[in-house]
Amino acid sequence: MRHLLTLVALLAFSPFASAEPLPSWKDGAAKTAITAFVTEVTTASSPSFVPPPERIAVFDNDGTLWVEQPMYTQLAYVIGRIKTLAPEHPEWKDEQPFKAVLTGDLDALKASGMEGVTKLLAATHANMSTAEFERIVGDWIASARHPRFDRLYTQVVYQPMLELLDYLRANGFKTFVVSGGGIDFMRPWAERVYGIPPEQVVGSQIAIEYEVRDGVPVMMRKPEIAFIDDKAGKPVGIQLHIGRRPILAFGNSDGDYQMLEWTTAGPGKRLGLILHHDDGEREYAYDRESHVGRLSKGLDDADAKGWLLVSMERDWARVFPAAPEGTPGAEASHQHQ
Amino acid sequence: MRHLLTLVALLAFSPFASAEPLPSWKDGAAKTAITAFVTEVTTASSPSFVPPPERIAVFDNDGTLWVEQPMYTQLAYVIGRIKTLAPEHPEWKDEQPFKAVLTGDLDALKASGMEGVTKLLAATHANMSTAEFERIVGDWIASARHPRFDRLYTQVVYQPMLELLDYLRANGFKTFVVSGGGIDFMRPWAERVYGIPPEQVVGSQIAIEYEVRDGVPVMMRKPEIAFIDDKAGKPVGIQLHIGRRPILAFGNSDGDYQMLEWTTAGPGKRLGLILHHDDGEREYAYDRESHVGRLSKGLDDADAKGWLLVSMERDWARVFPAAPEGTPGAEASHQHQ
Repeated sequence: MRHLLTLVALLAFSPFASAEPLPSWKDGAAKTAITAFVTEVTTASSPSFVPPPERIAVFDNDGTLWVEQPMYTQLAYVIGRIKTLAPEHPEWKDEQPFKAVLTGDLDALKASGMEGVTKLLAATHANMSTAEFERIVGDWIASARHPRFDRLYTQVVYQPMLELLDYLRANGFKTFVVSGGGIDFMRPWAERVYGIPPEQVVGSQIAIEYEVRDGVPVMMRKPEIAFIDDKAGKPVGIQLHIGRRPILAFGNSDGDYQMLEWTTAGPGKRLGLILHHDDGEREYAYDRESHVGRLSKGLDDADAKGWLLVSMERDWARVFPAAPEGTPGAEASHQHQ
Repeated sequence: MRHLLTLVALLAFSPFASAEPLPSWKDGAAKTAITAFVTEVTTASSPSFVPPPERIAVFDNDGTLWVEQPMYTQLAYVIGRIKTLAPEHPEWKDEQPFKAVLTGDLDALKASGMEGVTKLLAATHANMSTAEFERIVGDWIASARHPRFDRLYTQVVYQPMLELLDYLRANGFKTFVVSGGGIDFMRPWAERVYGIPPEQVVGSQIAIEYEVRDGVPVMMRKPEIAFIDDKAGKPVGIQLHIGRRPILAFGNSDGDYQMLEWTTAGPGKRLGLILHHDDGEREYAYDRESHVGRLSKGLDDADAKGWLLVSMERDWARVFPAAPEGTPGAEASHQHQ
């Protein structure tokens, strides 16, 4: 049985199998543009050939690789964590922003502003070691479920995007997540779910301090935001972590605008892609008016910038992996690159 | 006899030949410890087996991969750059720390302290785009020569370390530089010289800001230190950039102490190595009393911590690559990992 599985796995990743890449992408402008781009930059005789080390592809996470509605998954984690910790903190019943979280009062939560965010961050993301945070996030993501789809959050990732990541890696690309989300919130599961190892995850960061406690070195998470990897912060995060300009960028909101702008302004062939959430039936339909994942300037400028709008409704044959309920979905082993 | 010679020749070029890795390492405790460690963590049946994605190896740069005496190469760059720019800045003749640099007054330079460093940094590392800095460093490193060895700085890299990097990558390791030096000072040449791509270089950083100037996106370098990747900063840099604990760390000074400590405190097999500069004839002999690359606490604690002292004199058959003068040395193509 194990040998059979190995054989199947080998075939699945062999260059002879599945001659048709991106099976969950419908034939159309988006799929054609992607495969034409990859062919051009990987064909040695092409004037647009790019050597493998420079084949850097960056992907936003929330709304690009997985669902970001009705709220960012990291916010769902914060709410869940506050509820878990509440019995140890009776004072939270009367203290904002904790009271707002515990009573589900989103308006009061918003009104708590940056001060509220900092308090929530301190309670749920900091004052613990990196190892402890990794364990807490890993435990949470293994059981928390998306409210509408009743699947694990790691099962409301987009099947067409998983295929695109694999397709790019099979063509010598190195794939990175570049997200406004917390870098250490994504790392515990990004490798298993996306095939993207921790060192290829770029995200927002809180301050970290190295300490030796009772002879044991630990990395302590401090309640202090050190870097926000959003909007103009995304190209900066790319420079800090990757140090060279990507040739492909895929986002979905105006938070990704500068990442696409920086990527596609480079010389040679470049590809900028925006996922347009226009599929209320299978997922969500939102753009200019949305509080989460607002896409407005990107819609206005996509044509002029040469960015490709990918329509979830028209371009995707399926949205989510066919994972059986209750089992980890979309978590096959990936080829690393 | 002829057949025998053919056989020998075939063996010499087959993957089974040169069964002896690390040809510039002398047989001895260091070489044995390194190859034994690599065998243990890469043998599937070994209790110490480590899956490839977790085979992370980190290397200090100055004094570990290349010569750091009589001064850090980055300081040589600063001095060279100040001299290049001096004609445009007649006021520097009377202004510290520039005057100290131009007259070679190292005591006055030291006396200028952190304020002096900041001014030099601003003049030589900042107020320009990342692309411009990359070009300036690339040009400088292509021609500046080490004062004693009269070779390019990229030719006073250590041949045994180049072999170790290649050996580790051939065994599924991903190799990283983790240096107190500037991240963007190393990236323009680290790939060519060490086979380490920009995204696997960790170092000190100045602030970077994304701007669109006359419609062209640029990444501007600001005269402000954002992160110092030295001492306790090294494990922090590892966490920020790599996000998992290395299993091998190689350093040479007390600036690497915490990096070795963090690496070797993890579970399972770990290897911590310290290069001891004890070869005044072929390179330099220095440790406890040196201003550059001081090694004292590391010497005291190596035994107790289980760190291996590598003696340049005893353990290395050769120090530098056999590059012809004036040609780029040690710059063969490397296997990336």
